[in-house]
Amino acid sequence: MASDLEIARAATLRPIGEIAARAGIPEAALIPYGKYKAKVDFGFLAGQAAQREGKLVLVTGINPTAAGEGKTTTTVGLGDALNALGTKTMICLREPSLGPCFGVKGGATGGGYAQVLPMEDINLHFTGDFHAITSANNLLAAMIDNHIYWGNSLGLDERRITWRRGMDMNDRALRATVTSLGGVANGFPREDGFDITVASEVMAIFCLATDLEDLQARLGRIIVGTTREGVPVTARDLKADGAMAALLRDALAPNLVQTIEGSPALVHGGPFANIAHGCNSVMATKLGLSLADVVVTEAGFGADLGAEKFLDIKCRSAGLSPGACVVVATVRALKMHGGVAKAALGTEDVAALRRGMVNLARHVENMQKFGLPVVVALNAFTSDTPAEIAAVQEAMAALGTEAVHCTHWADGGRGAADLARAVLRRLEAGEARFAPLYPDSLPLAEKIRTVAREVYRASDVQIPSAIAARLRRFEEQGFAHVPVCIAKTQYSFSADPTALGAPTGHVLPVRDVRLSAGAGFVVAICGEIMTMPGLPRRPAAESIGLNAEGGIEGLF
Amino acid sequence: MASDLEIARAATLRPIGEIAARAGIPEAALIPYGKYKAKVDFGFLAGQAAQREGKLVLVTGINPTAAGEGKTTTTVGLGDALNALGTKTMICLREPSLGPCFGVKGGATGGGYAQVLPMEDINLHFTGDFHAITSANNLLAAMIDNHIYWGNSLGLDERRITWRRGMDMNDRALRATVTSLGGVANGFPREDGFDITVASEVMAIFCLATDLEDLQARLGRIIVGTTREGVPVTARDLKADGAMAALLRDALAPNLVQTIEGSPALVHGGPFANIAHGCNSVMATKLGLSLADVVVTEAGFGADLGAEKFLDIKCRSAGLSPGACVVVATVRALKMHGGVAKAALGTEDVAALRRGMVNLARHVENMQKFGLPVVVALNAFTSDTPAEIAAVQEAMAALGTEAVHCTHWADGGRGAADLARAVLRRLEAGEARFAPLYPDSLPLAEKIRTVAREVYRASDVQIPSAIAARLRRFEEQGFAHVPVCIAKTQYSFSADPTALGAPTGHVLPVRDVRLSAGAGFVVAICGEIMTMPGLPRRPAAESIGLNAEGGIEGLF
Repeated sequence: MASDLEIARAATLRPIGEIAARAGIPEAALIPYGKYKAKVDFGFLAGQAAQREGKLVLVTGINPTAAGEGKTTTTVGLGDALNALGTKTMICLREPSLGPCFGVKGGATGGGYAQVLPMEDINLHFTGDFHAITSANNLLAAMIDNHIYWGNSLGLDERRITWRRGMDMNDRALRATVTSLGGVANGFPREDGFDITVASEVMAIFCLATDLEDLQARLGRIIVGTTREGVPVTARDLKADGAMAALLRDALAPNLVQTIEGSPALVHGGPFANIAHGCNSVMATKLGLSLADVVVTEAGFGADLGAEKFLDIKCRSAGLSPGACVVVATVRALKMHGGVAKAALGTEDVAALRRGMVNLARHVENMQKFGLPVVVALNAFTSDTPAEIAAVQEAMAALGTEAVHCTHWADGGRGAADLARAVLRRLEAGEARFAPLYPDSLPLAEKIRTVAREVYRASDVQIPSAIAARLRRFEEQGFAHVPVCIAKTQYSFSADPTALGAPTGHVLPVRDVRLSAGAGFVVAICGEIMTMPGLPRRPAAESIGLNAEGGIEGLF
Repeated sequence: MASDLEIARAATLRPIGEIAARAGIPEAALIPYGKYKAKVDFGFLAGQAAQREGKLVLVTGINPTAAGEGKTTTTVGLGDALNALGTKTMICLREPSLGPCFGVKGGATGGGYAQVLPMEDINLHFTGDFHAITSANNLLAAMIDNHIYWGNSLGLDERRITWRRGMDMNDRALRATVTSLGGVANGFPREDGFDITVASEVMAIFCLATDLEDLQARLGRIIVGTTREGVPVTARDLKADGAMAALLRDALAPNLVQTIEGSPALVHGGPFANIAHGCNSVMATKLGLSLADVVVTEAGFGADLGAEKFLDIKCRSAGLSPGACVVVATVRALKMHGGVAKAALGTEDVAALRRGMVNLARHVENMQKFGLPVVVALNAFTSDTPAEIAAVQEAMAALGTEAVHCTHWADGGRGAADLARAVLRRLEAGEARFAPLYPDSLPLAEKIRTVAREVYRASDVQIPSAIAARLRRFEEQGFAHVPVCIAKTQYSFSADPTALGAPTGHVLPVRDVRLSAGAGFVVAICGEIMTMPGLPRRPAAESIGLNAEGGIEGLF
């Protein structure tokens, strides 16, 4: 069987100008980065009357398992299928992070015959957006320590600096550091650490900004730490916001690429879905909606994290109103949620499947709570049996939704044609009555409780009094109206990564809260959240290299 | 008077395809990065028969002073002037580092009417080359600590790791750090630190590599540290070379931009001129020579550092043979070398000028020692008086060289027409008899002594016995044949930055030696060498920002 890289290489790419023309983007608005990538110019974005008023379709999934679900692959396959059916469709994806490419993960550009191209470029430096975000993050960090070095007129407490440095690399050695060692010339030693770039608040800001002015305003609101008296110090206090915005200016223009079948895809931004909101940029999504009849986009992890944040943070902030939701599952992953070990997933087991289906069913119900019609995409594996597929379809029908078995991995858009038709039926029926889960006016602690109760189905939330006091402080500081961004494990509805299926009676423990004042949300940390991954024993990097023709091998 | 940024903005840029056509680069070989920047494809580089056999002109300077000399500006002005005279000329420059842009320095793309454009792009992320270099540097660092974390089968001694992390930022807090703190999951704590990207050996390798294969081979030879027994451990031992090469693949293609007057310029690579060799990439220089009749390029700092390394390291390694050398000076800077304070430089002072001219004279003689005909470019300031100009011209005539007063800053190429004619006369006379200063076969310590004696005019070199032993160890390890790269202050011929003019009787103290096995040289550290700058009290970053049209303000 051909690898993703081999399939990607065998594809014939069309010049990006041709893809742009198909998408309705004029040549003059195109900023090429090589022959097959381009950014779309701001002037065009701002000056252009919308060609269409696209409907927004969110692709989300069950809680991920080691069996794999294929959310990005399904997003691409669905977009290709819609285009093949004559519905003008734009695909909106996140940009992959460089770090994980060298670890275990490989690329993040779909798979099989449902990929965005050129895969090597998108998985490595692409158009440099993440590097720009890293630079902006680290310029602010340098200006913090430089401010202290030169007299600290703002009175920053070195012990209370919360801004961390960033790097787009899996490097556990940088999680906890001491910096400014070596004597007077190097500053005041303090504890510090690095997050991977996708975990930076700059990334979240980048993805929520509606234009350059909004970008700079948000950057200015970043709180980097406090004085001894607890008074917040911002990036604007340090006069860092302008230079940070300058570093991000070009990056903020969305990136256009193509799928194997030539569908246009905007791949732009990519925040973590735990301590940030986990979806692509507002700039790209809005551009897509102004150009296409349907925009298909994805959110990170399972629907409890990614979709909830997409709806409560991104859609709320940007005024977006999705028309439908696709929940991706596989027979194999559902069997894992039903207790089957990975080695046994190839064997038919309808009973285990039915047990595991509670996970899917709960995600479907949750999306319906947001007022969204749902279609289930059952991403095909060769081991799926007719009885297993029928069991899923039957259970989903009982929830008023349709489960469509799709083969886009092997067959491209053709394999997702039934899924596309099902999605179009729900869009055309105009059933969506989208509303965020909670009003802006709800107190922050109640927002956390609402998500825990309604989405995670927790029986209770544990908020220690010190943390409750900090939430009240955020409210007093003028951030009562912002949504909450809950950081918990992606593997379970609960905070326990081993509790698969649809756990009940669990308690959500809030261990820490942080104000992302620039992004415009309060992060509630519930469990161990890794903001700087490490490399495995045998990193993928060891196998990556160049072949005799200068092509890149070992990315997958 | 218009600022550099204002002048740059007022210029009308030509589409990069037009510039490429003028340079002889076909459309098919062009990889556009926006409308005014492009990379030139490897396939083209390799497959193309040389259109020309260009002559190479090095632009270097006196020891820099606070008065400013204008080496990049002169390189651009000379290139424009040569093109205007009908000599097909390519300009080859270094890429600016991002870090200093936010400090005091401002941009590094020339000045006045002798600039390369688009200046904001080139000074900020440009085509992402430095970000790729930073990533490759830090992937290796992550793989080192990851190797130790997972059992350290190579037996690396954590205390003897010499590979440092990198960042393209002026950040003194990162000079000396402790990493891997925080417990078992984060690795083994050790002392570490960051260098600015331009100081990384990866940058030096990038600039000396002749193709992708050579790049990867050099990366593999990088020594990251040793075992307890002193056995070197390389990037290839860690299997990091392939992934590093993959990260650098696209970056290795030279970048094409234009001057205000539309001359083609290759701006590619930019190593420090102290711990590295300080000139642009071999890839770009060779591309230029295959396309143009004359290639004008510059080297960092003064001729004692930049030119010496250009000639003894880059030209030796790449088999280049320059046809002439331009030494840039200003009347003001020469007066500073003659003891005049900065505030008094506006007043005519022929006596001080004559005293300071010893600095220029020695550099001219040094270049002549390498077998190169020399022209002196006297970069005009409005305060220059006829008597001062005449004094320089007279002194230079006595050395068999011509000093040409040029006004390219104010007048563009027209202002450097006389300089261009002087350079062409020397090239056409075919006087160059280039030879490096010392043969490959000389012992490493003798190579250091030769540079110190012949170029710095030191009376002696101090090499402590422990350091002499390390040099012998390098020789035993198979690196006897490599050139030396001396890292000392750029402000003086000596190791004392306050000894202006032409000091004699000084002793060069060798404080440390390091083997850059991948770059292919031994660094001799003579004095305090800063590999991670800091930001000043009022960083330029505080004034950089976006205007209402989204343009970048405050870069200069």
